[in-house]
Amino acid sequence: MNEQWVELAERLTPALHETKAAPKRLVEVAADADAFQGWRMEPAWDVEELRNKTFGKGESFTLDFGDHCVGYVSFAVDSAGSPQDAPLKLKLTFGEMPCEIGENFADYDGWLSSSWLQEETMYIDVLPAIVRMPRRYSFRYLKVEVVDASRKYTATFSDFVCVSVSSADRSAVPPLPADVPDDLRTMDRIALKTLEDCMQTVYEDGPKRDRRLWIGDLRLQAQANYVTFGDRDLARRCLYLFAGMPLPNGAVSACVFETPKPHADDIHLYDYSLFFAACLHDYYEATKDRETLEELWPVALRQLRIGVERLDARGVVKDDPSWWCFIDWVEGLNKQAPAQAVLIYNLRRGLKLAELVGAPEAGRIAEQLQRALDAALAHLWDARLGAFVSGEERQVSWASQVWMALAEALPREETAALFDRLHAAPPAVGMNTPYMYHHYVEALFLCGRTEKAWEEVRAYWGEMVRDGADTFWEAYNPNDKKFSPYGSNVINSYCHAWSCTPTYFVRTYWGN
Amino acid sequence: MNEQWVELAERLTPALHETKAAPKRLVEVAADADAFQGWRMEPAWDVEELRNKTFGKGESFTLDFGDHCVGYVSFAVDSAGSPQDAPLKLKLTFGEMPCEIGENFADYDGWLSSSWLQEETMYIDVLPAIVRMPRRYSFRYLKVEVVDASRKYTATFSDFVCVSVSSADRSAVPPLPADVPDDLRTMDRIALKTLEDCMQTVYEDGPKRDRRLWIGDLRLQAQANYVTFGDRDLARRCLYLFAGMPLPNGAVSACVFETPKPHADDIHLYDYSLFFAACLHDYYEATKDRETLEELWPVALRQLRIGVERLDARGVVKDDPSWWCFIDWVEGLNKQAPAQAVLIYNLRRGLKLAELVGAPEAGRIAEQLQRALDAALAHLWDARLGAFVSGEERQVSWASQVWMALAEALPREETAALFDRLHAAPPAVGMNTPYMYHHYVEALFLCGRTEKAWEEVRAYWGEMVRDGADTFWEAYNPNDKKFSPYGSNVINSYCHAWSCTPTYFVRTYWGN
Repeated sequence: MNEQWVELAERLTPALHETKAAPKRLVEVAADADAFQGWRMEPAWDVEELRNKTFGKGESFTLDFGDHCVGYVSFAVDSAGSPQDAPLKLKLTFGEMPCEIGENFADYDGWLSSSWLQEETMYIDVLPAIVRMPRRYSFRYLKVEVVDASRKYTATFSDFVCVSVSSADRSAVPPLPADVPDDLRTMDRIALKTLEDCMQTVYEDGPKRDRRLWIGDLRLQAQANYVTFGDRDLARRCLYLFAGMPLPNGAVSACVFETPKPHADDIHLYDYSLFFAACLHDYYEATKDRETLEELWPVALRQLRIGVERLDARGVVKDDPSWWCFIDWVEGLNKQAPAQAVLIYNLRRGLKLAELVGAPEAGRIAEQLQRALDAALAHLWDARLGAFVSGEERQVSWASQVWMALAEALPREETAALFDRLHAAPPAVGMNTPYMYHHYVEALFLCGRTEKAWEEVRAYWGEMVRDGADTFWEAYNPNDKKFSPYGSNVINSYCHAWSCTPTYFVRTYWGN
Repeated sequence: MNEQWVELAERLTPALHETKAAPKRLVEVAADADAFQGWRMEPAWDVEELRNKTFGKGESFTLDFGDHCVGYVSFAVDSAGSPQDAPLKLKLTFGEMPCEIGENFADYDGWLSSSWLQEETMYIDVLPAIVRMPRRYSFRYLKVEVVDASRKYTATFSDFVCVSVSSADRSAVPPLPADVPDDLRTMDRIALKTLEDCMQTVYEDGPKRDRRLWIGDLRLQAQANYVTFGDRDLARRCLYLFAGMPLPNGAVSACVFETPKPHADDIHLYDYSLFFAACLHDYYEATKDRETLEELWPVALRQLRIGVERLDARGVVKDDPSWWCFIDWVEGLNKQAPAQAVLIYNLRRGLKLAELVGAPEAGRIAEQLQRALDAALAHLWDARLGAFVSGEERQVSWASQVWMALAEALPREETAALFDRLHAAPPAVGMNTPYMYHHYVEALFLCGRTEKAWEEVRAYWGEMVRDGADTFWEAYNPNDKKFSPYGSNVINSYCHAWSCTPTYFVRTYWGN
């Protein structure tokens, strides 16, 4: 642990801006096989009517704040009828999406902790009371249920407020060019909201879950941030947190925690550690901050070395059961070829950084880059199939093709032709996350298939909009809308930073 | 509302003494048909072992604090294994008795609010943490369950403490006479603990439930207090709270609440309002505080007048479906005769007060007393049965005989003979609470059946001791040990002030 770096990161902790949101209406959740994930929100009554209603045992109401909120909720509660003669027992359920209000959390049986499901059971001994909930929630809908009052009194509610927090500065966002069409404007707005709600004292992956800094998410968040909010200190803070708290072998951890004091997780992901080089590269490109570049360059170099250590005698990333490489949440996805491509992608950026700082390792990096590229073409390219293959079983996945495109393993026109073939006959192993779709679209832009890129943005993020997204989601498969990597869609994060890149696409590629 | 009186009451609010208690051992609850209410506590492990154990999803432990506690709990919790990567969700269940730990609160289906059942579900976002629970609990046992942690970490626990609170001053309690036998010493100790744990900023009826000042409980608590802790200000505070916040017709409410500011409940119980006179009488006898007597005498007088208004042309309390009179928690108990007796009992004490203050109403009170006595003997005494009867159906209950004995409706020897007959052939309508048993035992002492009185103390409170009482209980029927007035014994209060009178009996009648 490099304490100086962690201290520097702590000094860069941003202040949070607060904005107040009030519920816009009351709704009722309704099961509807035709609605997204089987749940629809029906308007129930005006928010002004709430004050005049009373709620006894087993009665409930659901507030709709009209947009995604990340913050602290308070409300006023009083008794009606006889004096309060027993504690008021309330259950509050927060939902980013209707499914979280419609389904019973007790039925959740996924492998991620049920403690992420946002609910509280509370007792209020003395009414009237102003309840100020100490935990932060990520939600649009809030269901309030009177679990029990008593035979002699009921409860009344008013003054619900959410004080939302974010370190993003909305006023810094440049206007969109005039010719951006409405649907892309909508996606830009939702993407910005997604990024804003994930920009806290770090780039959180999701404010509902996991509420912490992952390097894979950071990379895309920072890229989107550089063309929108333009915050450089938060990205710098995050780089120093990763750099300051490596794993014992010097690899950058996949994620870090901020509290009670900064500490790293013990997860090493092959691709995520390598992305430290890309993150530093992007940060320097956006900020030209040479001091940070020079200070953190050795950390980037260490990641490249660790990445290269995994190459076998042929120069191909070893594929065995011992390693973890993320790439995407797809059951059965073989990670060898995409990992090889991620290595190449980062060696390219590392080489640039080495040249910028005048590092003596530049030559060695260039050699390794060439070796990895040659090995990819020699061993992972299947000329008969006209596609990259991965692993013993020579799996053809979208992920392998996309990452090889981003790694620029083939000349630009050959990559474009590869994608044309894939569009005619798609690989069986598909994509499940906006994170993977981001890389797919980025690859299309890179190889010049601009129209197809916008088509895919509209087909994927546009479909989320049609499915009711206030912020973009962690996981989304347009062909399997209840898809979850965790065993249940109720635990999915519906404001997830790695899905914020439509704003990056629009502001980087529209009109270019 | 008399604001000056309420303000005076507020100025008399006592400070609370704090004492720290730590768990003594860990236990496991076990179903056992032969144990009290079907549950037994088995020793599990030493409290020192807790620190070294870890608890994952679904695992739990139960702390035994070794005695009844009323206070605020704190503990330390940390993670073991990988860094905490999800909130820790805990469920804490507080039990005065094993049944509250053994049974599932979700199965509770009684008519009192389930919100009295002492449990909390909490999320701890950041470990390690010191958890300081803001609510007060009344318990001996605390079950801690890890509802969920995550696949990567488990939870560890230590430093459980309960800061118990009471306004009672233990050091003021006089020692028992040397010749008090051990079993009565034990009952005296448990009764004192019961009273102490109910003495908060008012005489609470029970610190688990209902946590407020009822006048029926106050009367017995104050009587026990005068011969033990000797606190006069708390009794005075309670008298002023009742006096200062009468119901619209001037009747004293059955109970009052302290927070958020003092206010009275809307319950009028015929007997409870009348007891204001007895409470003031007892307070004056104990303190000789003439100022309070003179100031509150008009309130007592008002209660007597309201009580007398219910007499019919014959001078008998009207029995119809419109009224509420407590007497005891016995299904089907007719309240007419006991209410008549409670009226007489309070008229007797009111007459004494009237004479003390030189009130012009003394003569009128004496007349009403005689009228009520005459009517009781003329219309409620059944010479053939040799017992008092109550209501249209001429019900013979313990309650009617006991209260007529306390009302001194018959000469002392005739009452004694009545009880002798009842012991040979008990009435079908029995007694279910220590409150009613108190009056029964008091009546036996009053009519000179001293041996029988001690026998009944030993049979009733002694049986509670044999059944494991740390403090005496709200409801107890030795023939139906799961008896509850509320539909489930888990919601019963197991530290309930109206059961604290063994200390009063021992200190008032032993050796006399």
